[in-house]
Amino acid sequence: MRFLHTADWHIGKKLHGYDLLTEQRDAYEQIKAIAIAEKVDAVVIAGDLYDRALPSEDAVSTLDTMLVDLNRHHHFPLLAISGNHDSAVRLSQGSEWFSSTDFYLNTRIADSVKPVVLGDTQFFLLPYFEPFAVRQYFGDDSIKTVAAGMERLVAAMQEQFAPDKKHVLIAHFFAAGSQHSDSETLVQVGGLNAVPVDLLNPFDYVALGHLHRKEALQNEPTMKYSGSPLKFSTSEAEDTKGVWIVDTDQTPVSVTFKPLKPLNDLVVLTDSFARLMDSEVSYSVKADDFIAIELTDTTPIANVMQRLKTRFPRIIELQRVNQLDVTPETLNIEEVQRDPLTLLDDFFETVTDHALTTQQEDWAKQALQQAMKEDK
Amino acid sequence: MRFLHTADWHIGKKLHGYDLLTEQRDAYEQIKAIAIAEKVDAVVIAGDLYDRALPSEDAVSTLDTMLVDLNRHHHFPLLAISGNHDSAVRLSQGSEWFSSTDFYLNTRIADSVKPVVLGDTQFFLLPYFEPFAVRQYFGDDSIKTVAAGMERLVAAMQEQFAPDKKHVLIAHFFAAGSQHSDSETLVQVGGLNAVPVDLLNPFDYVALGHLHRKEALQNEPTMKYSGSPLKFSTSEAEDTKGVWIVDTDQTPVSVTFKPLKPLNDLVVLTDSFARLMDSEVSYSVKADDFIAIELTDTTPIANVMQRLKTRFPRIIELQRVNQLDVTPETLNIEEVQRDPLTLLDDFFETVTDHALTTQQEDWAKQALQQAMKEDK
Repeated sequence: MRFLHTADWHIGKKLHGYDLLTEQRDAYEQIKAIAIAEKVDAVVIAGDLYDRALPSEDAVSTLDTMLVDLNRHHHFPLLAISGNHDSAVRLSQGSEWFSSTDFYLNTRIADSVKPVVLGDTQFFLLPYFEPFAVRQYFGDDSIKTVAAGMERLVAAMQEQFAPDKKHVLIAHFFAAGSQHSDSETLVQVGGLNAVPVDLLNPFDYVALGHLHRKEALQNEPTMKYSGSPLKFSTSEAEDTKGVWIVDTDQTPVSVTFKPLKPLNDLVVLTDSFARLMDSEVSYSVKADDFIAIELTDTTPIANVMQRLKTRFPRIIELQRVNQLDVTPETLNIEEVQRDPLTLLDDFFETVTDHALTTQQEDWAKQALQQAMKEDK
Repeated sequence: MRFLHTADWHIGKKLHGYDLLTEQRDAYEQIKAIAIAEKVDAVVIAGDLYDRALPSEDAVSTLDTMLVDLNRHHHFPLLAISGNHDSAVRLSQGSEWFSSTDFYLNTRIADSVKPVVLGDTQFFLLPYFEPFAVRQYFGDDSIKTVAAGMERLVAAMQEQFAPDKKHVLIAHFFAAGSQHSDSETLVQVGGLNAVPVDLLNPFDYVALGHLHRKEALQNEPTMKYSGSPLKFSTSEAEDTKGVWIVDTDQTPVSVTFKPLKPLNDLVVLTDSFARLMDSEVSYSVKADDFIAIELTDTTPIANVMQRLKTRFPRIIELQRVNQLDVTPETLNIEEVQRDPLTLLDDFFETVTDHALTTQQEDWAKQALQQAMKEDK
C-alpha cells in the first residue's frame, strides 16, 4: 500500500482579505499530479478540509469539485476525517454514499475504531474530538483530557488490529512530548490538549493534521504532520510545503516528502522604504505574491501603505521593526501637515483604490468651505 | 412505473419560533410507510427540501438521515430537485455519488434536459430557476420570463422524448393560467413568474413543488402540486396534507391522493376570551397543537396572551376579529391600572415563562422604592 498524506487544506480561507481559491486549486492540481506520478493506491486527508464550519458556497463547490475529480474521475480511494475547523455534520452530508467508490469520510468517534481495510493496511480514521465526546462514548467520567481519551481509543483500536496487516492512524490533534516527561514539560509544550507521541507507538504510521508545518514532529520517522499545502501566515514564510508519500510494504514504513511549488508565494521583505520604492532594487517576488513588509525606517512616512502598494499590490502585513524616532527634525512637516483636501484624497484612494473624481472633489471643497465658515 | 410525489418539505422551518423537526420527522415516517405500503418504484421530491439556503446543522442531519433511510436502507430510487428555498450548491454537495444507488438529485438547468430513465418512464428533473439562468443557458437574450424560459426548455426536453416511454416533468415553479388567456389575466394570477399550464401538455404527468396546497391546480388531472407535508401557515389550517401516488401504466396516468395525519395540528380557534378560558368548553385540540386564536371580544383584556397560554401552550397567532371598544365603561380600570410590581411580574412571566423568585421580587421592590424616593 502506497498512499499520499496531506491535510489542512482550509478551503475558503482568506489571507488578510485576499481570496486563496485560485492558489488552493493550483495546489490541488499539484497534489493530484503527485498522486498520479507516484501511482499511489489512496489519498489521505487528515482534517480541516474547510477553513470554517460554515463555508461559503464557493468553498463548498470548490472542495466538492476536487473530491469528485480525485475520487470519481481519477479513481483514487480517499480517506478523510473532519478537523477542528470543519463542521462534522455539514462536512459529512452525503457521506453514506461516498464509500461506493472507496471514499471514506469519517466524522464520528464511534466509527474510528472500525478500520477501513485497503490492501495490506488497516486505516483508523479518527476525526478531531473534544474530551467530552470520548467521555460520552466510553461512558467514563474520568476522561478529562484529549490524551486520556486517546489512550482509551488507541486501546480500542488495538483490539481490532489484524496481525497480518499494517496499522495506520489518521488523526487531527496536537501531538507532542512524551507520556513519561514530567507534567510541567508537557503543559509547556502542548498543555492539556496535547497527545504524547509515545501513545501512538502501536501504529506503523500516523498521518496527522492540525499543525501547518511538516517539521512539527521532525524526530518521529513514522509520525508526520503533512502541513498545509499553502503558507497561511508569515510564520510559515520560510516553509517548504508539500505532501508525504508513504509505503507500507517496508518495515518500518518508508516516508518521502514531495514539495509543492506555490503559485503565488508568501514573502517577507525587510528593508527601508527608500529601497522598497526604488525601482533599481529588485526583489525576487512576483506581482501576485503575498507580501509582508518589515520596514526598517525609524522616521514617520506619510501614506506609507498606499505608496508601497504601487510596487507590491498584495501586501498582507506592514510592520516596523525599529522604534520610530519622531522629533521635529525627523518629521517632514510638509509631508505630514497637508491640507485637508489632499488628506481626504489620499484616504479615499487608500480605501477605494480610486482617486476622487472632479465632481467628488468639488463636493469636498464645498463641504470644507462650509465647515470653515461655521468654524469662524 | 408507480411513484410517490411529494415536495416542499422545508426541513428546519420554524412556526412562529416553534421548531418543527419532530413534526417533520413524523410526516417523513408516514410518507415512508405509504411508499412501502403502495410498493412504489420511486419517490419524487419536487424542491424546497430545506427551508433555508443556509440550514442549521440539525436540519442538515435530519434531512440527510431521511434521505439515507429512504434510499440506502429502504432502497427507494429518489428523484429530487432544488427549490427556491434551497441553495443549489449546498444541497448538491456529494450528489455525484448519489446515483450509485439510484438517487438522482438535480440542481442544474443543463442536466434537466437529460432524462433519468426508470422503468417505462423518462423523468426530466428541472430545478427552480430564474429567467437569467435559462437566458444564459440558451445564450438567448430574448428570454425574459420564466414562461419564455420554460417554452425553450420544454422544446429541448421534447427532443429527448423516447416514443415508447412515458414522460414526467419534475419542477418547482408557479404554474397557472393559460398561454392563450389575455396577458392581463395572466399577470393577475401569477405575473411574470407564472408558467401557463398548457405549456406543460407534452408531459404525461407534471410533479410540481412550490405551492403548499394540493388544490392549487385542481382542474388539471395530470399536473399536480403535492403540497407540503405539514401546514406551515394559518391559511392552510383547513387543508388535508398528503402525497400523490402516480401510476404511469395507464393512459392517462392514474393519480391517487394519500393523506397524512398531523402529529400536532395547526388549528384556528375563533371564540370569546371567556369561553376560551372556560374549562367546561372543550375544543378538539391537543396540548401540543399549534393554535391561532381569533378573539371575538370587543373589550380590552389585560395580559391576554399569558392567560390564554395557560390553556393553549403553543399559540402561534393572536388576532382580534372585531373592533375594540375602548370606553371608560368597558375598560376594567382595576385590571389595567395595576401596581408596577405586578406589571413587572406579569411581564417577566410572559417573557421567561417563570414567575419572579422571592429574591428577584425583593430586588424589584428595593429598586421601585428607590425610584419613588428620587421621584419626590
